[in-house]
Amino acid sequence: MKNAGSVGIVRPEKIAFDTPLTLSNGRVLSRFDLMVETYGQLNEQKSNAVLICHALSGNHHVAGRHSAEDKYPGWWDNMVGPGKPIDTDRFFVVGLNNLGGCHGSTGPTSLNPQTGQDYGADFPVVTVKDWVKSQAMLADHFGIRQWAAVVGGSLGGMQALQWTIDFPDRVRHALVIASAPKLSTQNIAFNDVARQAILTDPDFNEGHYARRNTLPGRGLKIARMMGHITYLAEDGLGKKFGRKLHSDGYQYGYGVEFEVESYLRYQGDKFAGRFDANTYLLMTKALDYFDPAADAGNSLSKAVQHVQAKFFVASFSTDWRFSPERSKELVNALIATGKAVQYIEVKSNHGHDAFLMEDEPYIRAVAAYMNNVYKDIRS
Amino acid sequence: MKNAGSVGIVRPEKIAFDTPLTLSNGRVLSRFDLMVETYGQLNEQKSNAVLICHALSGNHHVAGRHSAEDKYPGWWDNMVGPGKPIDTDRFFVVGLNNLGGCHGSTGPTSLNPQTGQDYGADFPVVTVKDWVKSQAMLADHFGIRQWAAVVGGSLGGMQALQWTIDFPDRVRHALVIASAPKLSTQNIAFNDVARQAILTDPDFNEGHYARRNTLPGRGLKIARMMGHITYLAEDGLGKKFGRKLHSDGYQYGYGVEFEVESYLRYQGDKFAGRFDANTYLLMTKALDYFDPAADAGNSLSKAVQHVQAKFFVASFSTDWRFSPERSKELVNALIATGKAVQYIEVKSNHGHDAFLMEDEPYIRAVAAYMNNVYKDIRS
Repeated sequence: MKNAGSVGIVRPEKIAFDTPLTLSNGRVLSRFDLMVETYGQLNEQKSNAVLICHALSGNHHVAGRHSAEDKYPGWWDNMVGPGKPIDTDRFFVVGLNNLGGCHGSTGPTSLNPQTGQDYGADFPVVTVKDWVKSQAMLADHFGIRQWAAVVGGSLGGMQALQWTIDFPDRVRHALVIASAPKLSTQNIAFNDVARQAILTDPDFNEGHYARRNTLPGRGLKIARMMGHITYLAEDGLGKKFGRKLHSDGYQYGYGVEFEVESYLRYQGDKFAGRFDANTYLLMTKALDYFDPAADAGNSLSKAVQHVQAKFFVASFSTDWRFSPERSKELVNALIATGKAVQYIEVKSNHGHDAFLMEDEPYIRAVAAYMNNVYKDIRS
Repeated sequence: MKNAGSVGIVRPEKIAFDTPLTLSNGRVLSRFDLMVETYGQLNEQKSNAVLICHALSGNHHVAGRHSAEDKYPGWWDNMVGPGKPIDTDRFFVVGLNNLGGCHGSTGPTSLNPQTGQDYGADFPVVTVKDWVKSQAMLADHFGIRQWAAVVGGSLGGMQALQWTIDFPDRVRHALVIASAPKLSTQNIAFNDVARQAILTDPDFNEGHYARRNTLPGRGLKIARMMGHITYLAEDGLGKKFGRKLHSDGYQYGYGVEFEVESYLRYQGDKFAGRFDANTYLLMTKALDYFDPAADAGNSLSKAVQHVQAKFFVASFSTDWRFSPERSKELVNALIATGKAVQYIEVKSNHGHDAFLMEDEPYIRAVAAYMNNVYKDIRS
């Protein structure tokens, strides 16, 4: 974006909630923390707040840097900032780490107040509904009655959709990007392979690896390598790596042979070094369980019938994890019940990861939609 | 097929080769065995022989049963037998376990004559070219100068193609089914995740698990589960399992939740119990290396310019591992060089595994083509 800037140096904030939260599985968290970052100013009417929901491995650090030396900015820095599509000169933007996360919010690596030890595997499985419930408490904390917009890609888009169903009058606009109204059988299958890789790692120790000073890094690496392939399109992978060799000639062994192997192993190692395995397991389960139509007689139209939000739905041509067809299921259900929805299918060779990328028509579409959101809250 | 029967009780035969075989990587096998099954009678002119090449996890046991109590017949029993598309009343059909296999042919589980111990990880990485070389020695053993047809699906189809390039006058017809002229970047990436799962299993012991009395079953299970997803189409998976739960209601844990998880884990365990991990590694490398165009200036047309065989090429609409586009690359190269080729794209919801299934138009097309092969050898 022309003249677009950065939110600059940002500081996360941990917000404590001492009201008990009852989860979908019946268990109760007596208290919990949410790690949060905010950018921009909340206006007097508190009508300009935008919630950013993260995907499987995301967190509260959406934009800016934590210090001048920070190598990388937040995960959606190309989308959020002054003059950017989600314009922090106009909106008060809230990013959070979800419950069960491993970046400061209460999760498997936190202390269990009941035992004085880390939760580890004892942290309850949470659902998208649970997250939305906790995010509503976060809205209350800021005094936000209604979000101008709830925005998310992938698993984040599922939270945006769930918000409009569970709190119809608290969401003015929902931006659901590269998402799906529920996982396909293949999606669930891939998730289960990832989980099995972690669960069968001898260093997993039934999820209490921290106490035993082990790390199921092998399993987490395998899970991430596989996941990574499903985020990318053959188009993009082929263009970037093709069959390029890492060294001259074939090695006839099991070291790195093709460049794509080097790339994937590096990605896997990096992830295994920074992410918590129990959190990874939780996140994949939240994906599996998400199915708002199931609570409405398997009718997605029925599930969205009381929705008041207007929708922006975007999908990407080469996304085979959550293909355009999956977005259209949602679009069709919204149209069938007379809701306002704008839909764009973006031509991209970035696969599922396109929602994090710079494909120009996509960035422009979000900017245009958020411009209308801004007009809407000022009218 | 109407009136189609079984080849009945069959007996594998181990054939010893005492001529040294120089492999693509320069290493020499001083001797080797190939485990073989044959069905039907070789005619006097030795003109009716059909070679069946197997895919990643296949072997010599193509048709029939080893005993009356055998629960399952050979892996291509629906295709090979009296009155079946590859009609054993007409053809002498040869199935073999490839070099490096784990079903009786010389491979990682065999004794290394140099050391008196099992090869394990010391067994050399073999290529499709090496297999074809060894299969030519097998043809010589039977006195077969020219195969009426070389037939294979997936990795088997790659062998059929390599045969026509390396021994142009020894193949009359090649049936290349659900295959590709080389792996895509995504294919290689999935293979590497599978390998990493095996290589990083603590019980792998650098490939010498047999000597240490361990088995890298966890890794092999993960590899197979992931592989299995890539063999199936979402179409078929969705129809078979959808989001069906294994028990009533969500479990909110990491046991089996959805039916598809139960199915995949079962498949993974079964495979890990019957297949050798070193062989699995070898087979994936043979897939990765296969790229006949690479030896011809990256031109597939040049690679096939001296081919004399006529081709039957088949692909399946929902095969996303080796999509119809990949088959068309081969078809186009053959057409460009004036070769005879018949191509069929079969509508199927069985994904890559369709080549092993009963989709009627596919079975009928192979039967019709093999009928012409029979006419051809009698003319």
